[in-house]
Formats: sequence, C-alpha cells, structure tokens
Amino acid sequence: MRARVGVFGATGYSGREIVRLLRQHPQAGVAFTTGSGGGHLDHEAGLGVAADAYLLALPHGIAAGYAARLREAHPDAVVVDLSGDLRLPDTAAYTRWYGQKHPAPELLGRAVFGLSEVYRDRLRGARLVSNPGCYATSVLLPLVPLLRAGLVDPHDIVADAKSGASGAGRSPKESLLFCEVTDDFSAYSPGHSHRHVGEVEAVLRDTTGHDLELTFCPHLLPVKRGILTALHVRTDHPPDALVAALRTAYEGAPFVHVVEAPPRLGDVVFTNDCRISVHPAASGRAVVFSAIDNLVKGAAGQAIQNLNLAMGWEEDAGLPSGFGPDGVAG
Amino acid sequence: MRARVGVFGATGYSGREIVRLLRQHPQAGVAFTTGSGGGHLDHEAGLGVAADAYLLALPHGIAAGYAARLREAHPDAVVVDLSGDLRLPDTAAYTRWYGQKHPAPELLGRAVFGLSEVYRDRLRGARLVSNPGCYATSVLLPLVPLLRAGLVDPHDIVADAKSGASGAGRSPKESLLFCEVTDDFSAYSPGHSHRHVGEVEAVLRDTTGHDLELTFCPHLLPVKRGILTALHVRTDHPPDALVAALRTAYEGAPFVHVVEAPPRLGDVVFTNDCRISVHPAASGRAVVFSAIDNLVKGAAGQAIQNLNLAMGWEEDAGLPSGFGPDGVAG
Amino acid sequence: MRARVGVFGATGYSGREIVRLLRQHPQAGVAFTTGSGGGHLDHEAGLGVAADAYLLALPHGIAAGYAARLREAHPDAVVVDLSGDLRLPDTAAYTRWYGQKHPAPELLGRAVFGLSEVYRDRLRGARLVSNPGCYATSVLLPLVPLLRAGLVDPHDIVADAKSGASGAGRSPKESLLFCEVTDDFSAYSPGHSHRHVGEVEAVLRDTTGHDLELTFCPHLLPVKRGILTALHVRTDHPPDALVAALRTAYEGAPFVHVVEAPPRLGDVVFTNDCRISVHPAASGRAVVFSAIDNLVKGAAGQAIQNLNLAMGWEEDAGLPSGFGPDGVAG
Amino acid sequence: MRARVGVFGATGYSGREIVRLLRQHPQAGVAFTTGSGGGHLDHEAGLGVAADAYLLALPHGIAAGYAARLREAHPDAVVVDLSGDLRLPDTAAYTRWYGQKHPAPELLGRAVFGLSEVYRDRLRGARLVSNPGCYATSVLLPLVPLLRAGLVDPHDIVADAKSGASGAGRSPKESLLFCEVTDDFSAYSPGHSHRHVGEVEAVLRDTTGHDLELTFCPHLLPVKRGILTALHVRTDHPPDALVAALRTAYEGAPFVHVVEAPPRLGDVVFTNDCRISVHPAASGRAVVFSAIDNLVKGAAGQAIQNLNLAMGWEEDAGLPSGFGPDGVAG
Repeated sequence: MRARVGVFGATGYSGREIVRLLRQHPQAGVAFTTGSGGGHLDHEAGLGVAADAYLLALPHGIAAGYAARLREAHPDAVVVDLSGDLRLPDTAAYTRWYGQKHPAPELLGRAVFGLSEVYRDRLRGARLVSNPGCYATSVLLPLVPLLRAGLVDPHDIVADAKSGASGAGRSPKESLLFCEVTDDFSAYSPGHSHRHVGEVEAVLRDTTGHDLELTFCPHLLPVKRGILTALHVRTDHPPDALVAALRTAYEGAPFVHVVEAPPRLGDVVFTNDCRISVHPAASGRAVVFSAIDNLVKGAAGQAIQNLNLAMGWEEDAGLPSGFGPDGVAG
Repeated sequence: MRARVGVFGATGYSGREIVRLLRQHPQAGVAFTTGSGGGHLDHEAGLGVAADAYLLALPHGIAAGYAARLREAHPDAVVVDLSGDLRLPDTAAYTRWYGQKHPAPELLGRAVFGLSEVYRDRLRGARLVSNPGCYATSVLLPLVPLLRAGLVDPHDIVADAKSGASGAGRSPKESLLFCEVTDDFSAYSPGHSHRHVGEVEAVLRDTTGHDLELTFCPHLLPVKRGILTALHVRTDHPPDALVAALRTAYEGAPFVHVVEAPPRLGDVVFTNDCRISVHPAASGRAVVFSAIDNLVKGAAGQAIQNLNLAMGWEEDAGLPSGFGPDGVAG
Repeated sequence: MRARVGVFGATGYSGREIVRLLRQHPQAGVAFTTGSGGGHLDHEAGLGVAADAYLLALPHGIAAGYAARLREAHPDAVVVDLSGDLRLPDTAAYTRWYGQKHPAPELLGRAVFGLSEVYRDRLRGARLVSNPGCYATSVLLPLVPLLRAGLVDPHDIVADAKSGASGAGRSPKESLLFCEVTDDFSAYSPGHSHRHVGEVEAVLRDTTGHDLELTFCPHLLPVKRGILTALHVRTDHPPDALVAALRTAYEGAPFVHVVEAPPRLGDVVFTNDCRISVHPAASGRAVVFSAIDNLVKGAAGQAIQNLNLAMGWEEDAGLPSGFGPDGVAG
Repeated sequence: MRARVGVFGATGYSGREIVRLLRQHPQAGVAFTTGSGGGHLDHEAGLGVAADAYLLALPHGIAAGYAARLREAHPDAVVVDLSGDLRLPDTAAYTRWYGQKHPAPELLGRAVFGLSEVYRDRLRGARLVSNPGCYATSVLLPLVPLLRAGLVDPHDIVADAKSGASGAGRSPKESLLFCEVTDDFSAYSPGHSHRHVGEVEAVLRDTTGHDLELTFCPHLLPVKRGILTALHVRTDHPPDALVAALRTAYEGAPFVHVVEAPPRLGDVVFTNDCRISVHPAASGRAVVFSAIDNLVKGAAGQAIQNLNLAMGWEEDAGLPSGFGPDGVAG
C-alpha cells in the first residue's frame, strides 16, 4: 500500500512539481492537495486529513504555522517544509533576513536541514524537515566538501548565481511578466543581501566550523527552470585535488555528479541531479560550477528525496536522473 | 556631402549592425558593402572602390590582410578593423591566443586600440583603429578607472560575464542552433582561456601599469543581444568611492553612465551605452556590473564612435543612447 | 517650434512606445506624461495642461471620458484615443463587444477611424481620432483592397492571427508571467468572439459595403512584439491579381509594402511597416500574410502617423521603416 | 527478458528522443545506437547486429535503403522507419514531393502507415511500419474522424499549423540559428507545397475515400517542441456534433483526448498525447485545434507506440501521458 502524502500549496510552481513527481513515485501517492479552487482543499481542511506525510509548498511566514499544527494533529507523520521558515537557527536570524516576526518560534532548531547528501544520516527517520532554498542547494553542494577538506580559502568566496524565473514563484508581479523577462538579464540583491545568504552561512558554520561571509550575486535568467552557480574560490591546490575531494564526498550519491565540462542547465532540468565541475583560473584561483533544476533538486525533488530518507525508502525512489545506475550519463 | 564608408563583411551580425547604424548617421553614408551574394561586392572588388573610410567586420585571420591592402591603396582613408587581428601587441601574443600565424605582422603596433572613452585622444585623427572585443569592452570600461585610481586590488579580479548569442557570429554551428541555446545557459572557456583575456590584460598593462592575471568566465545567454559582466573585486574603499572615481573618469562621456540599480540588458540593447553600477559585498569586496549591447557598444556602435573621433565629427554622431543630452535616462 | 504633445498613460507598453517615438520626431515633442508615480502627472493634472495634441494610451472604459473632457478644455487640440472606446459605431455594438456601458456616448460617430492608409483623407485635419486595434490593423490593411477590388469571396474569410505578448498589456496577470508564456503557444477567444472582430466587421461594412462575418482566431506567441496574420481567402483569381490590387491600393504609401516571400516578424518589429504577401493554396484559395509590430503600426506608430496627418505634417515624420525612400528594404 | 531495439540515427533530435523514451520502457531496451562518434556504431555496423526491432531516425533518401537491408538480414524483426521514404503510395508521388528518385521502390506499399489510432489493427503484428510526419499526425488525428462521419466539407479544408524548431532537425543551417529563430515567427512553404501535404492527402484518400486538396500553412515557432494546428473547416453541424464524433472515434485511445479549452503546447510537450478541441466560428464554420509534441507523438513516441502494437505489448507501454488511466488530466 502506498504511503499517503498531503501537499499544501499545490498550485504554485513547486507544489505542482511535487504533485507531478509523486505521480511517478513507487511508494507514495497524493492523498490530497490544498490551494485555491480547482478541486483543491483549503489549507484548514487539509489539516484535518490524516496522512503519512505532509509537504508544505507555502509562502514563508505562513508555512511554519501549518507545520506546527500538523505536528500537533498528526505527531507520527513526516512534515517537510519547503519555505524559508525553519532554515535559520533562531528568531534573530529570521527577523534579520525575512524582516518579520517568526510564525512558530517553538519549531526553530527542531527541523533537520534537508540538504540530503550532507545531512543524510540525520534525515533518516526525521519527522520535521526544513527543505533548503534553491540557491542555497546550488552553493552548498559544491562548497561544503571543499571547505571540509580545507582546499579553498573560507574567507574569500564569491558565488555568482543565475536562476530561471520559476524560482520567483507564480504570483503575478510586473517584473515577472513575459515582456519584462524575455530578452533580458540582470542581477538583483547583489553582494550580501539575498535571503539565502543567511541559510548558506548558517549551514557552512554548522558543517565546516567556518564563520564566514559569502559574496552572493543572484541573477534572473530568461528561462523557466535551472540554476547555474559559479563559485569563484581562492585555492593553493590544483583543480584535480578539488575534483577528488568532491568525488569522495559524493561517492555513491545518486544525484550529485562531478563532470569534466562546465555543466549546462539543459543537462539537469527535469532531473534531481546536481552537476559540478572544477576549472583552473588565474593564479591562486579556481572556478567551480554547479547546475541544478531549481524546481527539482532545488525544491520538489529534494523534498521527496528527504521524504524517502525520512520514510526509510530508497533515497532515489521516484526521482528522475540523467545518470544510469552505473553513474554514466545517458 | 556625406563621407563615403565601405563596409567589408556586411552579412554577419556586426556588419549588418554597421549598415543599420550608418543609415541614421548625419555625416556618413554606406558607399558599398562586401559579402557573399545579395547585391554585395566581393571583398576583392571592394578593395578597388575609393572611400573616406572602411569598416572591416571580417573574421580574424582574414581582416588584417585586407586592412593592410586598404592602407596601401587608400592611404588617407580611415580603416577600422573589428576583428581581433590588431588588438594584441605582438605576434607572440597573437599566436598564443589565436593559435595561428598573424596575417599582417607589419600592422601590429600601428593601430590605435578603439576603446573610445579610454583612448579618445589617440583616436582623434587616427587612420588605423583596432576595435575592441565585446567582452573586453564590458570589462575594461569599469575596470580601467578603478585600477587607475588605485581603488581595487589589481591581483584579485574576477570577471563573470554573460553574453547573448549574436556574439558568437552567424556561421551555422550545431551549438548555436535555436534548440541548443533556448532554455539553456552555460559557461565556456572558463578561467583564463578565452581570447579576450589577452587583449584585456594588454590594455590594463598599457593603461594602468599593472601586469595582472584576470579570472574571466564567459557564459552564453539565451538572448540575442547584450553582455552583462559582474566584476568581483577586492577593495578597502566604500562603494561610493568607486562610484566617484567612475563618475569622474566618464564625466562628459556621452555613452558611459554610472547608475544606482544593477543595470539590465534591456536598458542598453540597441544603444551605444555602457551602464555601470557598484554594490557592497562581503567584507573587503565589492561587485561592479557593466551592461552593453555586444553588437553596438561591443562592435558596430563603438566602431562608428571611433570613426567619428577619427574623422573629427561629434563623438556621438548617429549613435543611439538611452540618455538625453542632460544625462537623464528616458 | 515643436508641437507639444501630452501623453496619457505613459507607463504601459503602448504609452512608453509613444514617448520613445516622439523623442525622435522632428516636429513634435512630449509636453507631459501621465501615469502613476515616476515623474508622471496624474491624469487629472494632465487635463489642465494646454498642448497641441493629446495621445491617450489608457484602458477602454476610461479613455473616452478623458477624450471628452480634453475636447471641452482644449477644443483646438488633436486627440488620438488608442483604446477601443471610440472604434465602434454605436453604444449597442460597444455593449455587445465590451460588455459594459459606454463612458462617453456623445463621442460615438465623432471620431475618424485611424487606419491611416484607408482613411487618410478624413484624417487630414481631424481633431478626434480613434486608433485601430492591433489585430484589426493587421487584418484590415490586406483585406480592404482585396474586397474593394472584388477579388475575394466576402462570405468566407478566415483570419488566423498570432500576436506577441505585449499586445496583452503590462498589468500583472498569472497568464502573462514569463513561465506561462515561454515555451508555449495557444489560441484564445477563437472563432467569432474577440473584441477586434467588432471593429473589423464595422470597417469592412463602411469601406466595402459587405456585411460579413469574419472567422478570427488569435494566438499568443512567446515573443514580445509583432503580429503575423494569415488570411485564408476564397478567390477565383490568381495570386498576381491580388498582388496587383494591393500594390495599386498602397502606391506611395510609405509603410505598407507588398513583398514576395512570407514576411517575418523580424522584418517589421521596431518599424511602422506592414508587410503583405500573397500565395497560391488549394484550388480556389489563396493565403495572404500580413506582418506588423503590434506596438508600432498596431498602436503607437499608427497614432503618430495619424497625428502627422491631423497636423498636416509629412505622413511618415519621425516614424521608422525598414524601407528606404525608394521603396527598397535595407 | 527485454526486447532488444537498435536505433539508427541516435544523434538527431528524434533519435535522441527514442533513446530517452526506450530507457523508461518496461519491455524494451536499447541494443545499440548508430550515428557519428560518441560511442555510436556506424550504420553499416548496426546492420550486422541482431535485434528484435530497429527504429530508423535517418534522413529521407537514406532510411529506406537501410530498411530494405535490415528486412533482408533480419526478416523476423520489426522495422519502423521515421523518415518520409515509405509514407507515399508510389514512386511518382515520392518524386513529386521529395524531388528525387526513391531509394528502395520495392518497399513502397509494403509498410503499414503508423498513425497508431487510425491503423491500429493493421499495426498489430506488422513487420514494416512507416511512421507519419509530425505535421501529418497533427492534421490527420482530428480530421479523419470528422471526414469519416461526414461532418465537414472535404473540399474546403485549411490547416494553419505552427511547429517548434526541433521539427527542422539538428543539422546546422543559418535559418535555424538561435538569433534567427528567437523573437521571430513566420510561415514557410505556404499553400500546397509542404511535403507533408502529400502524405496527408494520401491517407485521407485511403481512410475516407475523399480525393481532396488541402490548404496547408506551416509556421516556425520560437519554441523547441510542439505543434499546434488550427483546422478551419466548413460544417453545417454544431461543434457538439464534431466533439461527439471525435470522442467516439477515440474512445479508449490512451493518448488522444478531446478537451474543452483550446489546447496549449505546454499541455502536451514531453507526452505522447494529442489534445483536440472544437469551437464555433463564423456562420457555417468551425475551428478545430490539435496539439502534439512533434518529437513524441509526432515522431519518437508514436514510433514506440507502433512498436508496442507490432510486438503485441500494451499500446501505451513506456509512453508518457498527461492523463491518468481514468482519462483525467493531472
């Protein structure tokens, strides 16, 4: 019998992607969806439906409140929150990066951060998971092993990231109209001001012990899906040493792959893969690229990967990859 | 009477843009065009037609040969070469970056480098101009004043650049097909390997005295026109100091504008403008953006700006800008 | 001295295009603009500013009220309304196609329909002009001469039209988000239900005497600008006869050009041109294509063309074309 | 044990899609691929490898020769030819539409036309299948049932079709470059000249007895995938009657679905579905839309559907649909 999964917020881009992916899942099925109109329950009604797991694709500021109520009503169920509400360590950090009061401070520190490959052990059997931001996933997957191995200077890291427009969500805004995005390209929140900086720095502190400041420059690409991040790092080591550290860290990981050529968005969209490459640069520097689909590995796919781990299923159950079981892309 | 301009290679994207812009020029007109078929002369025939100026939008390896023959046949005419043939200081550098023998070594060192705002004085009255590469223009315009003012660390500069597909030219290649470029994004020649690195480093040495290595990461955007470059620089100075240095350097320049918000490609396409902004980043760092239209300021427009200077006309004659004479965007 | 033009609604796509085009106009200049914020007057304040002409790029239902008040306050000025308010012959037709009460019924029948080439004589010296819809322009320019010449069956006309997204305006709607429009294509309001059907049928009745029903199928293209319409017509005449009739009708017209190959949007965007071609089809049928830029010939450009006629200036003053004065495309 | 399938021409867009889909097939697997370089066999070598089925994604003029040799070498295997070589009834028709001599005339008349839903009975157990053209599929699926039911006038049919650029293949041509296709839209081969007209008319003659001339206007869309066709038909019947005939014809068909609203490309891309809708138009007319993914239902997907029928597997084995087993889209 399939596990029953309730999906909150099934009309946004991440929520729809969760439903699309769950349809192909061998062990899970959609129990109900919430959203406005179109056969969806409203969120309040969803709270009352018993299920094995709940995936929350709701706006930050709203999600954590539902997470808290779901845990109370269905204490044995798995709850995966895709919003930013539970990613930061405390209310002060939340207020700094989100500019508002935390909706459920009692949950802070209770959720496992769902960067699947990095926190895999904690995620097995977890009952509350905070799914990472899409940009954070693209930055952390290459960076954590390199910092842990001591191969790059922790105090001089620049992440120049480019995301497709679905990362900005489905709410109508003038800046997201077709005529404003097509044929165009620009940076936004450059330097040290985007919200995902907070969770990246917190995770790096937790995983590597480094209390560092990241330069982070996100850009809006005229494509629907995908994030390509260029990490500009200082290193005294040759690219091969960085590649080796990444290969070791992700040995056996079904979705993280170190490749030779700079990865293209077209390689990863519609998959749960993260492709990483390393290249020499000017003396004392290297460039590390990572590519993911922001809606899959950056949101819905990683949420299901975390669900798989929490439920004790195969980590890659129901999730698409461009690589075969032999690790060869095809 | 209008000056007569011959355009070599009028069927490529840069050549067509030259013709389009010259049609609106108050003092110049197209005398003839060369290219294959469609009413164009062949290149040999073009050599025989007397004109006041010749603009060469030909592939590197071919352009300099025609430049040499034009100077011999028409010694008083202005020749602007848009290829990479005359941008580097010597044959050794040419062979290193272009992997071939130089087609007209006697011209090396004879051309003025056509970065209009930086070499304006040398360009007035020049008879041989080497037009900069599109990426080089986008990197040098913000960087030269900052290095000259001693505001950024010359030994730690990263340029993360993104260009529209017209920069790759009009020759049919599988990698440039619509289905390969749309919905996609990727880096190429990352680190220290793209040809424009050579001319950027040469110009920086010439203008600032710094013998530096640049990390340069170009990317292919799914748009037709435009380059946005993010310069990640180390600096001990606040962004305002960088802004002030740029404003001073480009005071009175009709096409280079320092703006507040990160510039969008949509702000500059179809204009000869370069928009630059400066933003704080992690401690000790800043981000500097520059945006140009690769076919206008990065090629045809700057070639005409250089023609204007060489002929003694108004620098901005016939060239589109998004700014009024008062310097206000409109 | 330049004529002073007030632009109402200068923040939408058509309004911005009017401002952009007026900047290049030799005889007219922008006196003021209205819109919300950003240095624009509000509409009420605009009413009080004396000018030689007013161009209204306001939503239907609102525009005609301002037109009425402007005529009262500034009876000698030219008013060009780009909305649908004044295009239909009577309030019954308005209510049928727009589903609301007419905002200024006293103006109905007072405006000259601004299909410049067809109503040129009435437009000279006009004081109130109703600018046509973008789709209507693309259908009527090829169709009026063919029907007048009796070359196509008036009772079996199908117009299959495709428009870029700027035709739908700049108000944020989910259906116009980048992620909803890119990589997609679909029809809407197919058959006999789109608002422009009303004005097309009214103009055809007026100009050709035929009381006909048009099959009209608009589609949304994933491009910013341009309308390509395929008219599928029944005819007993060879394509050459249709071409001849069109050439005669538009002899000397600076912007309507009959071409050989099917026109591309890329040929006409950013110009005030309409390109038309005729092709044989199955027995007894022909296909007629027309291509325009919906924001230029379909809105702002034609409004200025009408202003030129109303003010007694050259019809093509300040308006871009892809054709030289010799009628040769360049 | 999985059936072994050889894929000829696995580097083009259709060939790659075949490989992608076969990877998810429960009963079939890729035995080998041919193409140039990259681990593919060359075509000659492929001929020597025994397999249960061969799918040929080769250019017309080349494909039929390999089909003939495969049948000789492996007489029990299923051969599905995706080219146009075997779609027409005789060499005269082939020469007319393809302008060259037929490469294997002995095969003409021996292949079953692979329009799966229409020729399902003949396809079961077939050993040689000629896969339909992508445009032909989009025209024939809605049209065959309507003509068979006598609901539309066979002598006045216009098909206005729009296809994504992958339909033109992966060979580098200037007209297919990103910069030529993006932001643009145009018709080509309009009227009665596109090659698919030949196979559409032949199939209509075979299935409905009508010897008719189709007006067919293909257009190139700036998208990668998808064909949307508008059939403009004359009819004395209400749309409901047409809908009923289509529903009856495709009852139980897993991939052809009659829907209410005009179908979007976004509804069908990456699926083997064909969505059809019917709408009222001007008096005596209706508009019928059909949407498919040109690479799936228009090529690779339908080839696998035909393989399924030929091998006696479930018709929908391994093929993606946007509809559940209950016929409800999800």
